[in-house]
Amino acid sequence: VVSNIKGEHLVSAKINPNGFFKYGFPGPKHDLQNRGEFISCYDRQTRNPYWVLEHMTPESLSMRNADRKNSYFKEDEAIPDTFRAMLKDYFRSGYDRGHLAAAADAKFSQEAMDNTFYLTNMCPQVGQGFNRDYWAHLEFFCRDLTKKYGSVRVLTGPLYLPKKDPTDGKYRVSYEVVGNPPNIAVPTHFFKLIVTEKPLIGSNTDTISVAAFVLPNEPISNETKLTDFEIPVDALERSTGLELLRAYPTNKKKALCKEVNCQIVV
Amino acid sequence: VVSNIKGEHLVSAKINPNGFFKYGFPGPKHDLQNRGEFISCYDRQTRNPYWVLEHMTPESLSMRNADRKNSYFKEDEAIPDTFRAMLKDYFRSGYDRGHLAAAADAKFSQEAMDNTFYLTNMCPQVGQGFNRDYWAHLEFFCRDLTKKYGSVRVLTGPLYLPKKDPTDGKYRVSYEVVGNPPNIAVPTHFFKLIVTEKPLIGSNTDTISVAAFVLPNEPISNETKLTDFEIPVDALERSTGLELLRAYPTNKKKALCKEVNCQIVV
Ligand SMILES: [Mg+2]
Ligand SMILES: [Mg+2]
Repeated sequence: VVSNIKGEHLVSAKINPNGFFKYGFPGPKHDLQNRGEFISCYDRQTRNPYWVLEHMTPESLSMRNADRKNSYFKEDEAIPDTFRAMLKDYFRSGYDRGHLAAAADAKFSQEAMDNTFYLTNMCPQVGQGFNRDYWAHLEFFCRDLTKKYGSVRVLTGPLYLPKKDPTDGKYRVSYEVVGNPPNIAVPTHFFKLIVTEKPLIGSNTDTISVAAFVLPNEPISNETKLTDFEIPVDALERSTGLELLRAYPTNKKKALCKEVNCQIVV
Repeated sequence: VVSNIKGEHLVSAKINPNGFFKYGFPGPKHDLQNRGEFISCYDRQTRNPYWVLEHMTPESLSMRNADRKNSYFKEDEAIPDTFRAMLKDYFRSGYDRGHLAAAADAKFSQEAMDNTFYLTNMCPQVGQGFNRDYWAHLEFFCRDLTKKYGSVRVLTGPLYLPKKDPTDGKYRVSYEVVGNPPNIAVPTHFFKLIVTEKPLIGSNTDTISVAAFVLPNEPISNETKLTDFEIPVDALERSTGLELLRAYPTNKKKALCKEVNCQIVV
């Protein structure tokens, strides 16, 4: 709809920008995939997920039908090769292939666990002190919520946040790109938005409990309180460019960290 | 479709990741706008356009129904305020408010020219030596193509490209973010994909002529050849994450710079 342009001007000008789309719509395209335990949404420009959305229940986490030894990291051939994250990009990068939906969240099915090894569920993560340590403890905290809630939903993704440069006071985003030629962006931070439903104790309710955390992609001391990383949901929206839980009324959302102790266990 | 998960495992696990979407789909959302002379597609995470798509004809550029003095820069209220580029972000930033669809491309209508002043058609651009100089000469080159073609389509957008760090040999993306608090990313480069149709001389043809250029967001000497900035279209796809002209057959695409002299005039 171009309602504010005078009709006769548009006609005389003989233009129709839409005509370009016969050559194909440029995008960006989001490459959504439903992988069983999670849904992934891929960012072709950074070669990382935009986000990965998981669902865990007491039932799913009690099942043991998978062994990580049977899984292997794999490229996602649903992504056009122009935009595909490649195994070779990670080789000698100094970063772990860091799962966004954790393999340990998908033990109910070998295929579901295998699916977590797609590079469309992966970002370059600092290994020591982060992926293998603090971040893994946060993943455990999420699974552990199924002791109190019948349904736990986690939205996880990368961030590329600005930092103040002490030399000139300006804010800059700065991140490495790994691969040769450079291909996959190394996020500066990772976020988790946690939504719990169906408290196991108490009456049926459609109220949800919500918490959002942003952690730096760096070694983090296990002494650090998880709540140090908590941020308001609207601040997470601003950082990600995503709309989070906007379709649900405010009076049906509670703060998760007032319901449970938001802390990691080592 | 989750065809590779054993049915009984999915049922026993009681999971449905899709259930999150009742709270709203996260996005990213693209905020497409048809503004008459151009269509814009907005990136909520950088607060810049992803791309702006223009259409120019000999007719549109011959009309004089607009004066830039009547236009003023404006915020785009169609963008939720969480993600909106603000006029104050540019204040004392050191960068120009750089049009992607140039005001001078929209003289056929005052409303069309006014629309080019939306911040959803704007990026922070170096002024001296770029926006006011070399980039303006490139914009003129595009308009000038209407002397040879009855239809000229230009896709313009920002880029955030990695650079090799001489100290450690690693590739990094580094860019400033302007505003207080920081809000709008300063692109490292800008691209133009030019598609010309309907050559004015010669027989009717549905063959198109194509060229892609990537310029750094820096002062550029007017001596620099425009062809120094030319890159293959598939390389531009890889940098942008966009799909460009994929729906049109290769044998109907020609190289623009073999048809015309791709050079700027000062
Ligand atoms: Mg991990
Ligand atoms: Mg300009």
